[in-house]
Amino acid sequence: MSTIRRLVLDVLKAHEPSIITYADQLAGLERVSAVNIVVMEVDRIVENIKVTIQGEKLDYTTIEKEIKDLGGSIHSIDLVIAGKHIIEETPTHQD
Amino acid sequence: MSTIRRLVLDVLKAHEPSIITYADQLAGLERVSAVNIVVMEVDRIVENIKVTIQGEKLDYTTIEKEIKDLGGSIHSIDLVIAGKHIIEETPTHQD
Amino acid sequence: MSTIRRLVLDVLKAHEPSIITYADQLAGLERVSAVNIVVMEVDRIVENIKVTIQGEKLDYTTIEKEIKDLGGSIHSIDLVIAGKHIIEETPTHQD
Amino acid sequence: MSTIRRLVLDVLKAHEPSIITYADQLAGLERVSAVNIVVMEVDRIVENIKVTIQGEKLDYTTIEKEIKDLGGSIHSIDLVIAGKHIIEETPTHQD
Amino acid sequence: MSTIRRLVLDVLKAHEPSIITYADQLAGLERVSAVNIVVMEVDRIVENIKVTIQGEKLDYTTIEKEIKDLGGSIHSIDLVIAGKHIIEETPTHQD
Amino acid sequence: MSTIRRLVLDVLKAHEPSIITYADQLAGLERVSAVNIVVMEVDRIVENIKVTIQGEKLDYTTIEKEIKDLGGSIHSIDLVIAGKHIIEETPTHQD
Amino acid sequence: MSTIRRLVLDVLKAHEPSIITYADQLAGLERVSAVNIVVMEVDRIVENIKVTIQGEKLDYTTIEKEIKDLGGSIHSIDLVIAGKHIIEETPTHQD
Repeated sequence: MSTIRRLVLDVLKAHEPSIITYADQLAGLERVSAVNIVVMEVDRIVENIKVTIQGEKLDYTTIEKEIKDLGGSIHSIDLVIAGKHIIEETPTHQD
Repeated sequence: MSTIRRLVLDVLKAHEPSIITYADQLAGLERVSAVNIVVMEVDRIVENIKVTIQGEKLDYTTIEKEIKDLGGSIHSIDLVIAGKHIIEETPTHQD
Repeated sequence: MSTIRRLVLDVLKAHEPSIITYADQLAGLERVSAVNIVVMEVDRIVENIKVTIQGEKLDYTTIEKEIKDLGGSIHSIDLVIAGKHIIEETPTHQD
Repeated sequence: MSTIRRLVLDVLKAHEPSIITYADQLAGLERVSAVNIVVMEVDRIVENIKVTIQGEKLDYTTIEKEIKDLGGSIHSIDLVIAGKHIIEETPTHQD
Repeated sequence: MSTIRRLVLDVLKAHEPSIITYADQLAGLERVSAVNIVVMEVDRIVENIKVTIQGEKLDYTTIEKEIKDLGGSIHSIDLVIAGKHIIEETPTHQD
Repeated sequence: MSTIRRLVLDVLKAHEPSIITYADQLAGLERVSAVNIVVMEVDRIVENIKVTIQGEKLDYTTIEKEIKDLGGSIHSIDLVIAGKHIIEETPTHQD
Repeated sequence: MSTIRRLVLDVLKAHEPSIITYADQLAGLERVSAVNIVVMEVDRIVENIKVTIQGEKLDYTTIEKEIKDLGGSIHSIDLVIAGKHIIEETPTHQD
């Protein structure tokens, strides 16, 4: 089983279902403890959302399937945290 | 019942009733624990407000109905947090 | 009785009485626990102040009357927090 | 007696006495618990200082007299906090 | 054994395997307690990632080997923390 | 005895002795509990340093003498905190 | 013995040995409790690093010797903290 504790996903979706349904469904998955969804960009037909998922031993395949079932598609995985505890990104002078 | 803990709504409203009435009414809804309303833009006839609603098992339909009853209309749902605890958005380099 | 816990008001006033009198008078109102006043703009005759009022079950009518009695006028209500606890505004990507 | 807990003053002064004397003298006033003075601008003859005074039931008249006695003059009162506890200014979208 | 507690690495990798595999594998190494990976830049063939690894007595050779085995290459080591506790970088006026 | 708790000084010095000697010497003065020195500007012959000194009942004359003895000269006193506790500067809209 | 608790050094070094070796070696010195090294600039032959060293009664001569032994040279000492506790730099309006 994985050691993944947080995932940040860039997802493209139709306007329906709303991000409320997305958040509620994703929060209902096993081992997911919290979900944060913010809208990044909206146009006439689709919207870009940023999904932060926290939990323990997160299973990407289940998450991906849930998003697909809701009609969304994951454009990219932008951040992953794994291990025994959370560690935030450290700023450097090469950023 | 949903697992929604926070909603951020972009609402268009007439000047009356004031955001005090909006905040007070929304804070009175079941399972809502706190409401924050800031004015974003004002013109002669309408104003744009940003409504942050916190609670447990928030029911969007009830909130939407309350805002409609007050004469406002929800333009967009900009952020949703769901799950067993609050998680803020994680900054990434793709923002 | 309302559930209002914080109000931010944009107030126009003459130079006299000073913001010390304003803060002291507003802090003396029932159910007001704290007042913060900052000067935003000053011209020859008037000044624009930003008034943050915290308390429990704040009564807008009493606050408005007090400001009027001091010779000021409320230009706008810019922020309201209501409910069982304080919640700050959540930043989004639509701000 | 007032409920003033913090005052921020914009003061014009000669180079002498120094801001050390100002801080020390103001901190010695009754009901003043702490004083912070920063230099804002300096020219050949005068300097502009920003004085933050914290305490309980602060008396503006005594503070003003002390500053006058030291040779300074209060240009403006830029911030006042009053009440049962300290509340900082809340940022809004009208700032 | 080293006293290294945190490493920040700039890594170039193919799109596959994903950063989830990278984070999971690196978090599985001995003495690694947490891993944070953010995507910095993406092009058609490769992507640049920033890897923060926290632990005790981190062994760079093992980490380097793991990244190589995954098909990635370390471009640079951008930050190192060593010793009995974590110390963040102190900002100076020469930065 | 004064009530001064923090002083920030702008000091001009030769390259020698180093800021290590300055910090060590100033930290050794009576009633000084901590010293922070950052280099602001360096040229061929002199350097500008910013000295933050914390303590209780700080004596400016002793501090000034120490700096003089080290060959430095105080260009300006940029901040003073006095009283029963530390208070940081409060931001205002007139800054 | 000195009262130095933190040093920030600007060091020029060859690419080898790596900053991992530098951090590990410096963290191994007596009375050093933690070391943070960030890369500031890199060119073909050398790199500029910023070294933050924390401890008690730090001995600059030992640190300087260690860096020299590793082949690096200290360009400047950019910050020093000394005394009974750590104090960060206080921002002023003359910075």
